[in-house]
Amino acid sequence: MIKIALAQLNYHIGNFEQNTRKIIDNIKRAKQQGADLVVFSELSICGYPSGDFLEFSDYIHKCDKALEQILPYCDTVAAIVGAPHRNLSGKGKPLFNAAFFLENQKVKHICHKGLLPNYDIFDEYRYFEPATSFHVTEFKGKRIAISICEDLWNLNDNPLYTGNPMEELAQQGAEIIINIAASPFSWDHRTERETMLTQNARKYGLPLFYVNQVGAQTEIVFDGGSMAINPKGEITEELSYFEEDFKIFQVDKIISQKGRIPEKGEDEKRKIEVIYQALILGIKDYFGKIGFKQAILGLSGGIDSAVTMAIAADALGAENVLGVLMPSAFSSDHSVEDAQKLAENLGCPFYKIPIKNTTDTFEAHLKPWFENLPFNVAEENIQARTRAVYLMALSNKFGHVLLNTSNKSEAAVGYGTLYGDMCGGLSVLGDVYKTDVFRLARYINKDKERIPVNSITKPPSAELRPDQKDSDSLPEYDILDPILFNYIELRKSPGELYQLGLDKEVVDRVLKMVNFCEYKRYQTPPVIRVSSKAFGMGRKMPIVARYLG
Amino acid sequence: MIKIALAQLNYHIGNFEQNTRKIIDNIKRAKQQGADLVVFSELSICGYPSGDFLEFSDYIHKCDKALEQILPYCDTVAAIVGAPHRNLSGKGKPLFNAAFFLENQKVKHICHKGLLPNYDIFDEYRYFEPATSFHVTEFKGKRIAISICEDLWNLNDNPLYTGNPMEELAQQGAEIIINIAASPFSWDHRTERETMLTQNARKYGLPLFYVNQVGAQTEIVFDGGSMAINPKGEITEELSYFEEDFKIFQVDKIISQKGRIPEKGEDEKRKIEVIYQALILGIKDYFGKIGFKQAILGLSGGIDSAVTMAIAADALGAENVLGVLMPSAFSSDHSVEDAQKLAENLGCPFYKIPIKNTTDTFEAHLKPWFENLPFNVAEENIQARTRAVYLMALSNKFGHVLLNTSNKSEAAVGYGTLYGDMCGGLSVLGDVYKTDVFRLARYINKDKERIPVNSITKPPSAELRPDQKDSDSLPEYDILDPILFNYIELRKSPGELYQLGLDKEVVDRVLKMVNFCEYKRYQTPPVIRVSSKAFGMGRKMPIVARYLG
Repeated sequence: MIKIALAQLNYHIGNFEQNTRKIIDNIKRAKQQGADLVVFSELSICGYPSGDFLEFSDYIHKCDKALEQILPYCDTVAAIVGAPHRNLSGKGKPLFNAAFFLENQKVKHICHKGLLPNYDIFDEYRYFEPATSFHVTEFKGKRIAISICEDLWNLNDNPLYTGNPMEELAQQGAEIIINIAASPFSWDHRTERETMLTQNARKYGLPLFYVNQVGAQTEIVFDGGSMAINPKGEITEELSYFEEDFKIFQVDKIISQKGRIPEKGEDEKRKIEVIYQALILGIKDYFGKIGFKQAILGLSGGIDSAVTMAIAADALGAENVLGVLMPSAFSSDHSVEDAQKLAENLGCPFYKIPIKNTTDTFEAHLKPWFENLPFNVAEENIQARTRAVYLMALSNKFGHVLLNTSNKSEAAVGYGTLYGDMCGGLSVLGDVYKTDVFRLARYINKDKERIPVNSITKPPSAELRPDQKDSDSLPEYDILDPILFNYIELRKSPGELYQLGLDKEVVDRVLKMVNFCEYKRYQTPPVIRVSSKAFGMGRKMPIVARYLG
Repeated sequence: MIKIALAQLNYHIGNFEQNTRKIIDNIKRAKQQGADLVVFSELSICGYPSGDFLEFSDYIHKCDKALEQILPYCDTVAAIVGAPHRNLSGKGKPLFNAAFFLENQKVKHICHKGLLPNYDIFDEYRYFEPATSFHVTEFKGKRIAISICEDLWNLNDNPLYTGNPMEELAQQGAEIIINIAASPFSWDHRTERETMLTQNARKYGLPLFYVNQVGAQTEIVFDGGSMAINPKGEITEELSYFEEDFKIFQVDKIISQKGRIPEKGEDEKRKIEVIYQALILGIKDYFGKIGFKQAILGLSGGIDSAVTMAIAADALGAENVLGVLMPSAFSSDHSVEDAQKLAENLGCPFYKIPIKNTTDTFEAHLKPWFENLPFNVAEENIQARTRAVYLMALSNKFGHVLLNTSNKSEAAVGYGTLYGDMCGGLSVLGDVYKTDVFRLARYINKDKERIPVNSITKPPSAELRPDQKDSDSLPEYDILDPILFNYIELRKSPGELYQLGLDKEVVDRVLKMVNFCEYKRYQTPPVIRVSSKAFGMGRKMPIVARYLG
């Protein structure tokens, strides 16, 4: 009658004091509530991903010290804790990604990860040596197969890997599967994850306990969703998504309990809702973990800044989100009205700073060189950059973090001003295509008009020259976004895009823009990742290349 | 009497047309000059590193097509060409990093790379499956051991790897070693590379032919330096550094020829000279490969912008480098004079735009909120950002690329204004510590005073407030730089730094600044890499972490 507690926690990378305290608190809690074993997520001691801090011997030393501090609390309750483990064999990378089994105040067993993900945002081969042999852990008369995240992602059909840790553990008579993970959120990933885990439970006919990290680490959101699965492959119990949680399960009960089977199509149904939740957590943790409370952003009256402000207000409190209206000579009256109405609807403070005097000053000083040359992107960008100077001045004076309001569609094609509207400490919508920004706006407005309807219904415009529309420079977003999705998320070739019925001339122009604008994206803020392929650390493109250009 | 040609070329990533033409031209050249075999560098077909383009099936298809175009030229001369090769086994990553041996217009043999580097700027496990078996290639009665770059970097003492391809090839009776590489430059790497290669030749008692890529790929500089080594482990012949080269060697002659042994200490001696050369190539190729000719930069009268301008003038031609002097209320007279003298000395055009009117306009509009608050970093940054707006306006109007002038010391501690002086398409000095910037300045002035001596001798200042000096905020650079070097390049812990005799309070403050400013560096331009650990793609640090903070 083993009782297993799952502790789904939000760790702060490198903050050993806080992480250790959280782990100890939850060991105590598990003990008080009569658990035999409490399980924490992958690399919980230091937080995932720790990046190149793992290359600092001192950092690993601090992980070891934290484990020592935790050990005394594992007396009548055992614990599984994730931490790096030094590879002392003298062969291979200097660390293993490990699960430490702590029992009777001792390290009873150390399990190493075998399948190291090294794609998209993952680069575990950079730090870790993969394990090549796997051993079950005996605990209270039961054989436990402890695996680490990706270790369960091979049902002998994953072309990425040649090994299969779980197969080996099953052959040793495993009776319970435990998987500790740091599995990042993307809107289309939940069903895939549930399917992989339930298939493992069913294949081996064993109960499975899964603990995922929760919380955002700059751009990566970990969504939690830890769970218990019965040997038929049904999800019997679940922990929360997007927040810390703690639950205790009786193994016998899980084995006999009925549950649900993951269903295809669920991801698509909840897409906008979970993107909204992920963005909230992304903002909350970015601010919380760097110790800032207040955000600032420019309000144009358009939909991107409106959605960004609404989400920021929900994450940080409306009073902590300052909007700045900065109309230029080309701003329409409705833009200013819509922006002001937005701030009022949400209850956010706002300032108004007209920028015409400032841009006039810039242009006057540039007259010796610009005279007689036509108004073009240079003058357009002066407006966007003047706004950035105002926003950053306020940010510097009062300690607000500037939120970037660019969406994924414009970031993709470079429709934005570097050091202008592309500024910010964090990009909220940088992984959300424009067509989904519209859906988010409607979701935010589902109970009442928080975002002025006019901001949603009017044609998108940067308003940097008279009567400008996005569609002057770009295909309509319902044509653009599918091209981008197929190229960025699905890595389709031009030929495959034509076959989808997309216009060749438009496809070629769009792909050329995407590749050419790599230099702009290189300098943009971290983007909260909500898709399977976000700009940033998970997409590594050369700048000086000439492919499809 | 085999004759081997080494073709050390500068490839453009993804530019299949140009790369293929270069390869074909050099096959023809080898044939005309009577070579039996011509060898090209690692992944020469597509250029190295191709990044996530390798995830596009279409990109690999284009590599295959290029190989088909090359084949007909390999009639009386054979060729070794680097290209990705699809892994059709259904197990492991979808590609191999391969060397194609082309003979009699056919692909005679394909060798796969076994040791995949996955550290610093390398992430080959992201794309490639490592080979686990290796086979010599028979050519004109000789057994040739073809290896790819890192494959020779294990003399059974490299802890990173468990395998040793060359050992296996030697056991098959190899008679000649050929290594095709894409080995990046850093100022302290040449001797290490020469030592590794000569030790291989000596250990196996075989002649070794090494072909490296040359040319810069955004931030990474490949320095060439291809060579032939005799079986005693002496370098008998060398190709140029930092430029394309082509040479033919008679294998028998190389075997009997005397050569030199790599000497420790050489790297330190030539450090400043090779950094200068690498920066020249870095600028040249960045501009050349994106198709731009002209650069712009802000001139402060200080040493960083002076050194940047001198190097840019040497790379692009003085007439193509535009300096802009933008004195503020806090600029000293000598700053303007020094900047003007610099441009005149170098023969570069320069514009002068005083910024006081513009910053006054910003401050006037901010008065409702800033009134009665002390002048601080907000007002300082307005000056730096105003300058960036002017520079980018000129860049946008006339098509100049803005060069960033930040040095590595200030980038490390965040002593710079985001969206201000941290702007630019390319950072020239971002991997050069301030103390080395001084050395570079003296090197540039070795024949005559190109950089005004006053710019070198006066105390560094950002001049953003009255009588400001860098040393108001930072330790002196001869104290700061060793701390940074030990922490960044050598990954030493605070404890180890104290043991070097560095002041604890200073060390703690500096390391805290370095870690805290990750958010700034995230948004800075690509940095030309000249050290073993540059900011950018080779150093992956989380932003929201709290380590040593």
